[in-house]
Amino acid sequence: MKLKAIGLVNSPFKLKKGSPHQGRFSNEFSTITIYKEYEEALEGIENFSNLIIIYWMDRAGPASLRVVPHGKTEKRGLFSTRAPVRPNPIGLCMVKLVKREDNILTVKWLDALDQSPVLDIKPFVPDIDCL
Amino acid sequence: MKLKAIGLVNSPFKLKKGSPHQGRFSNEFSTITIYKEYEEALEGIENFSNLIIIYWMDRAGPASLRVVPHGKTEKRGLFSTRAPVRPNPIGLCMVKLVKREDNILTVKWLDALDQSPVLDIKPFVPDIDCL
Repeated sequence: MKLKAIGLVNSPFKLKKGSPHQGRFSNEFSTITIYKEYEEALEGIENFSNLIIIYWMDRAGPASLRVVPHGKTEKRGLFSTRAPVRPNPIGLCMVKLVKREDNILTVKWLDALDQSPVLDIKPFVPDIDCL
Repeated sequence: MKLKAIGLVNSPFKLKKGSPHQGRFSNEFSTITIYKEYEEALEGIENFSNLIIIYWMDRAGPASLRVVPHGKTEKRGLFSTRAPVRPNPIGLCMVKLVKREDNILTVKWLDALDQSPVLDIKPFVPDIDCL
């Protein structure tokens, strides 16, 4: 199972230190540049107010099966946390789509570090993504 | 960017034909068997009523940049749909956790085909995953 980048994040978050633990709690803007070869796949995306961005957390530390979640003091199982130190460092973030200009999406709430490879974009559909 | 399976889906959906286009609209149960080497990472997962399952859609067709979404008649860009024919066939499904028995999770709403490799499990957190 091999992945290919479909685009790249440009974000104000250059380093893990100082970056938000969840993008939702930040008002910063990021852009996602989709590679030209995939631009056609963006058609219609401007009709969605929110998107789910799947990206590769290329600077996550080695996987750890038990971690202390953000703001907690005791370790628990990794899969009951959103910590980045996962066997597959796949980042998942629901964002607000601010605008699309050709192959560049401007979004809010994205917590990816600058230059993170983007793997997939799916429209956010509350009927299936939420309770 | 290489992925490794952390577990395997056992599902009543053996073939694409006849499987629900979204698991949310099905009442069938599936199980996710997490490989023993990752079992420790499940600690605490039983405290979440809902999980996000990330899996590999190993039987998805070749990527297509424009597709006709389920129930529609006109093509649009792939990234504005949830169709499986993606450059990276990463499946994403919010499910209801019914029970955990050791390394086996029983869930509802999962639309993965039987024997799909599981890549990651994240707790569903409405404050960041929903509006």
